[in-house]
Amino acid sequence: MQVSVEQTKLGSVQRDFSEEEKRGVYRAIYERRDVRAQFLPDPVPPEVLGRLLDAAHHAPSVGFMQPWDFLVIEDPGVRRKVYENFERANRRAAEIYDTGRRAVYDRLKLAGILEAPVNLCITCDRERSTGYGLGRQTDPATDLYSTVCAVQNLWLAARAESLGVGWVSILDFEELKATLGIPETHTPVAYLCVGYVSEFRSQPDLEANGWEQRGSLETLIHFNRWGERNAHRAATLVPASVAP
Amino acid sequence: MQVSVEQTKLGSVQRDFSEEEKRGVYRAIYERRDVRAQFLPDPVPPEVLGRLLDAAHHAPSVGFMQPWDFLVIEDPGVRRKVYENFERANRRAAEIYDTGRRAVYDRLKLAGILEAPVNLCITCDRERSTGYGLGRQTDPATDLYSTVCAVQNLWLAARAESLGVGWVSILDFEELKATLGIPETHTPVAYLCVGYVSEFRSQPDLEANGWEQRGSLETLIHFNRWGERNAHRAATLVPASVAP
Repeated sequence: MQVSVEQTKLGSVQRDFSEEEKRGVYRAIYERRDVRAQFLPDPVPPEVLGRLLDAAHHAPSVGFMQPWDFLVIEDPGVRRKVYENFERANRRAAEIYDTGRRAVYDRLKLAGILEAPVNLCITCDRERSTGYGLGRQTDPATDLYSTVCAVQNLWLAARAESLGVGWVSILDFEELKATLGIPETHTPVAYLCVGYVSEFRSQPDLEANGWEQRGSLETLIHFNRWGERNAHRAATLVPASVAP
Repeated sequence: MQVSVEQTKLGSVQRDFSEEEKRGVYRAIYERRDVRAQFLPDPVPPEVLGRLLDAAHHAPSVGFMQPWDFLVIEDPGVRRKVYENFERANRRAAEIYDTGRRAVYDRLKLAGILEAPVNLCITCDRERSTGYGLGRQTDPATDLYSTVCAVQNLWLAARAESLGVGWVSILDFEELKATLGIPETHTPVAYLCVGYVSEFRSQPDLEANGWEQRGSLETLIHFNRWGERNAHRAATLVPASVAP
């Protein structure tokens, strides 16, 4: 594909991506990692952090509701409190695993709260009136889903900026709300650690550490109705993978 | 930034993106639209659809759970049933608006179920054992969030492939599950219309049609604790926007 030279129409944007622009999108998707252990202390320049937040703010949202807020957390005292929250939650979480798996669990590094120079908490306002409820009557969770789209936009933009992101879900979220002063009507959807990294690993940590493997895409595809498999048709889709 | 020429280390990938690769990522983020009205009937080649599904399959997931399934819906009879579901749900949804806003609502085109050549339903298996529950004990909704990350990966990859995507949330989801035969334990997170488009609009439809405006990012940023504003600091972040 060549770089498109078509005239931009009034009210519309250039349609096609160059091959290198497309490669950028797929690199971000395939080379994005959930970073826990490779954070460097180097500061994140404000203009770069601004680009990440603006990418998040341009996520799709139900009814154009834009239900998100962004807490930028750099204060060491606040991060220390969140880290202690994580430590307690992680000890409780570890208790469900039997001996063999527990040994693997205990070796996993699951959060970079103190090492990453920036933490972000992205919240969802469950009662924001923006968007006038359009699209939410049939599924009230769609505001949470919109907020997750913002997280994923930020994560991919971060990868393009050579920044690692780790999503910490092992937290007592009621305690997190108290620590950060988040109002009752807002749900903390994602707590993220953000920073430059020593390297981007070629595999997810949980795969490299033997916790879980990536499943086969073919087995997850159904045609027209649940359970209607078509091995021939699925095979025409799946070899096209550009994954590493 | 130049194309990085650093040696790829064993187990890690090239860190930096070229300027054009970065532009691709930001173009996908800023030029992604929620498409309803501009679908063309042109078929989506299987290798392209395969790349979208594989992009979705490479989303982050809690504990590497990979809770998603993908229904590829092209059958006109199935799409007709889903369209009738949408029509009924949309009539009910319209009833909450008073006269002025109702007039705007009735002018909105909210789904391209019949026009788009491919519909996709992306589901979340709430009971999948992959990942052994890691990261989910503290927030059981994280499997739904992982599935939304898959949706957003697919949406951005689609934009890079010049394909439009529209997320239809105005559906009776119990009826949708019955129509598609989705098991009780699986939640349909997203119903998507996918196809080539006549154009990508420069603004979201809901903004262009006067339903809602994009809010200011500055007002959504807090520092260290909720409500702690810092206009000077926020201003250092926000002018960096590369948005159109």
